[in-house]
Amino acid sequence: MDKLTLHEDPRSGNCYKIRLTAALLGLPVERVEYDILKGDTRTPAFLANVNANGRIPVLQIGKRFLPESNAACWFLAKGSELVPADRFAEADMLRWMFFEQYNHEPNIATLRFWLHFVGRANLTEAQDAQVEAKWLAGCAALRLMDEQFARRDWLVGKSLTLADIALFAYTHVAEDGGAFHLDDFPHVKAWIERVRAVPGFVPMTS
Amino acid sequence: MDKLTLHEDPRSGNCYKIRLTAALLGLPVERVEYDILKGDTRTPAFLANVNANGRIPVLQIGKRFLPESNAACWFLAKGSELVPADRFAEADMLRWMFFEQYNHEPNIATLRFWLHFVGRANLTEAQDAQVEAKWLAGCAALRLMDEQFARRDWLVGKSLTLADIALFAYTHVAEDGGAFHLDDFPHVKAWIERVRAVPGFVPMTS
Repeated sequence: MDKLTLHEDPRSGNCYKIRLTAALLGLPVERVEYDILKGDTRTPAFLANVNANGRIPVLQIGKRFLPESNAACWFLAKGSELVPADRFAEADMLRWMFFEQYNHEPNIATLRFWLHFVGRANLTEAQDAQVEAKWLAGCAALRLMDEQFARRDWLVGKSLTLADIALFAYTHVAEDGGAFHLDDFPHVKAWIERVRAVPGFVPMTS
Repeated sequence: MDKLTLHEDPRSGNCYKIRLTAALLGLPVERVEYDILKGDTRTPAFLANVNANGRIPVLQIGKRFLPESNAACWFLAKGSELVPADRFAEADMLRWMFFEQYNHEPNIATLRFWLHFVGRANLTEAQDAQVEAKWLAGCAALRLMDEQFARRDWLVGKSLTLADIALFAYTHVAEDGGAFHLDDFPHVKAWIERVRAVPGFVPMTS
């Protein structure tokens, strides 16, 4: 495989997904750090050379650039034990990864970013008006996960897949900023401990 | 393959993605219609039997249920000419599908739903406060696509893939509700005509 370089902000759960996937697969990844709060990913050089969408993470593979955290995890893990071989199970794994980007991340990660890193007093009026709706939608996403984990250990099949990695990233730090309380979701809490116990696991701060 | 049943609202672009994918692959799909404006997907029976997340589309495969439009398209198209065989190209296709769910659909599809089907006067105060931000973000998504199509005919590789299908669904009806004007994105308009000319293409109203 070509040399792997992760363009990232280490505080971002989306970036951590890729580092955790690479660690579980034993793949070395070089890291280039950006500060999203300082606008490092909106510079003309970043937009021209790394990602025209102005976002991290971007996984660089040799000279090619792959944005979108879940697509990068897919690139690394395809054909490994982190992706189920069965056609329905594989699609069901992607189902949870799309759920993560649509129902989970825009609520749970965005509230963490707004309340923990930016600070509520610094939000725009339009952002502040969305806090309540994002909290409700984030709780609904966590409740759906809690119902899953009441019945099963992993989102798909009988072991950890990319679906668990994608949802672990922002779930395990959902309390940052104070919006969400994981004690309300005991089955999610138990799953968090299962993920942490997987051989090769690395924490977000690694 | 087991019998395919699509649980859908025919006005939804997310549902249309699955019908277009199935049509291009020559796969017959039975359709069960719901009216999302009447809350058909939030009934206890729907939540218990079809999708606990209360959303359509859901692709039913025999007795199994697969939510999330892009995951359903993946299930149908895996191994076909709609999915590139190359590892990077396949991940790049998924990149655009995650972009669609994160940067495109929540802005372009949501504004179409709010302004075309619900009506601006009927929006909640919190929804109304988001119209401007969603318009800006939707324009940014269309601009990114326009830059792509200035340089290439299809999002990935040299022919139509699931990435084009995913982004075609809400792009070609982006003018519904009046928020977006496709004349501002001429390369997107040309790509829309290329998609329509693909053998086996079916319109959203089919």
